[in-house]
Amino acid sequence: MDGTTEKKARLDNGSSVRPPNPYLEKQDVDVLFHIGLATDKDQLPARFGDVKFVCMGGSTTRMKRFAEFISERLGFGTQNGTVLTDLCSTDRYCMYKVGCVLSVSHGMGMPSISILLHELIKLVHYAGCKDVVFIRMGTCGGLGLKPGTVVVTDTAVNEMFEPAYKVPILGKIVSRPTQLSKEVATELLAAHDSNADYDVTTGNTMSTSDFYEGQARIDGAICEHTLEDKIAYLQAAYEAGVRNIEMEGTCLAAMCGAAKIKGAVVCVTLLDRLLGDQVTMTPEQHQEWEHRPQELLARFFINQLRKEGLY
Amino acid sequence: MDGTTEKKARLDNGSSVRPPNPYLEKQDVDVLFHIGLATDKDQLPARFGDVKFVCMGGSTTRMKRFAEFISERLGFGTQNGTVLTDLCSTDRYCMYKVGCVLSVSHGMGMPSISILLHELIKLVHYAGCKDVVFIRMGTCGGLGLKPGTVVVTDTAVNEMFEPAYKVPILGKIVSRPTQLSKEVATELLAAHDSNADYDVTTGNTMSTSDFYEGQARIDGAICEHTLEDKIAYLQAAYEAGVRNIEMEGTCLAAMCGAAKIKGAVVCVTLLDRLLGDQVTMTPEQHQEWEHRPQELLARFFINQLRKEGLY
Repeated sequence: MDGTTEKKARLDNGSSVRPPNPYLEKQDVDVLFHIGLATDKDQLPARFGDVKFVCMGGSTTRMKRFAEFISERLGFGTQNGTVLTDLCSTDRYCMYKVGCVLSVSHGMGMPSISILLHELIKLVHYAGCKDVVFIRMGTCGGLGLKPGTVVVTDTAVNEMFEPAYKVPILGKIVSRPTQLSKEVATELLAAHDSNADYDVTTGNTMSTSDFYEGQARIDGAICEHTLEDKIAYLQAAYEAGVRNIEMEGTCLAAMCGAAKIKGAVVCVTLLDRLLGDQVTMTPEQHQEWEHRPQELLARFFINQLRKEGLY
Repeated sequence: MDGTTEKKARLDNGSSVRPPNPYLEKQDVDVLFHIGLATDKDQLPARFGDVKFVCMGGSTTRMKRFAEFISERLGFGTQNGTVLTDLCSTDRYCMYKVGCVLSVSHGMGMPSISILLHELIKLVHYAGCKDVVFIRMGTCGGLGLKPGTVVVTDTAVNEMFEPAYKVPILGKIVSRPTQLSKEVATELLAAHDSNADYDVTTGNTMSTSDFYEGQARIDGAICEHTLEDKIAYLQAAYEAGVRNIEMEGTCLAAMCGAAKIKGAVVCVTLLDRLLGDQVTMTPEQHQEWEHRPQELLARFFINQLRKEGLY
């Protein structure tokens, strides 16, 4: 097979990811600018073809710690004297690979995770990854939940409580449905250690474009609403099934849906927004709570790999 | 004066920044969560009270290099055996202080810079900074400009070419006017070294919520528009006075406007979007081009400090 036939054969394979963009096939070289990889200089199938779980989180140090934790907890990947290094050649994101797990930072907000998702969807496509799952693992504000509770997203909704991600394209607002994998959410919930001293629950997740005003806080630099407005809005969100609030979920759910990739969102709540705005837990609590989604994911990975006889 | 009277006196001072949020005065302690500073544990007036220029850029390493460059170029700040260290106690952003210049990374996209701006506006308020200027210094795509050209923003516009920043608050879209300082823009243009072998120009800057589809690219993972649609849209943007495209300008312009802070945006173009989508300059060009806004800012700082007899 020559290069073009081989490329076409890979594109025709049903279980691989096929990005919904007819122009990609016509492009000889693709530079994934923000992660710093390119189809001509990097051997993407050889380096990334075995990836099954693409895990994303906002913070760079957390995603490095997650890679180290997974390596230790699952006992694979960075054995035999290797050392984890950042695979992104830019400082926009960081990316670590531990066996079939990719741990990538996405920064904060939907534009930031959107750039990353465009490039990661193309990466798993060029690498020929099969049956890949994309999971965002983050921190969030909770609604009516004890701080430290882990929420597996049922439906990702926007600030109007609609299951939609709206983004301006060519001067028009395009609305895309949020589509997370019910199957992955169920398996994530089932992976929880029932002996743990914290809850893993499910609910709708609201994604916003701002942390302060966009999440109805009254402690931002700008605030044109009242305390009463805030309480009424958060109460309405709760009644619409929202159990946590973060800044990336709907974008991930819509982009994974469009690319037919199984997507999931797992976040730990750092505070109960029905009780206040300020994030004031101790550094020790922060570290302990941040670790909870990581442990859940580790148990989920083991369950999945066992099903396939790989663990 | 007791603490409350002193706080009130500071708030009443006209030349300081007064965040448009009546609730802030009622709050005893304010934790600036994402930059990791707090009004109770950090001596904000003593540490930040002399800040005049708050410079923001997307990349952490670029903003560190900028701080080092300013320290060297202006000959102040990190003299006498001190070493620059990151003042953010979280990894969400980085922040360096060199004399009256603060160099801060803002990540990518409006939600990311929005969180930072809320916290920086509160920081310069609590610190009692006077006549402070906020400047975003970034990279961008150009329209009809030679790559490497520096653009000082005239008007920041959204994807519909409107001078507005729209953000959902309490379930409704709130539209705020973009307001940059014409005076600062004029002084930035005047600071350009006429012997330099590149141009500094002015024009409208379009801010988008996505790098690929949101900027009409056809090389993202998802693309539902055609090459012809893209060309027509970029041409319409050019005709509306848009000369460069980035992802944060309208948010900065609206938030600075709301807080009555002089704001400016200075970006270098990495490619001409009328000719293509992929960013393919060499690392050497990238470094050289990224440095151009930095040199312009250094010359602007010197001019401003000279006016006040401080240089």
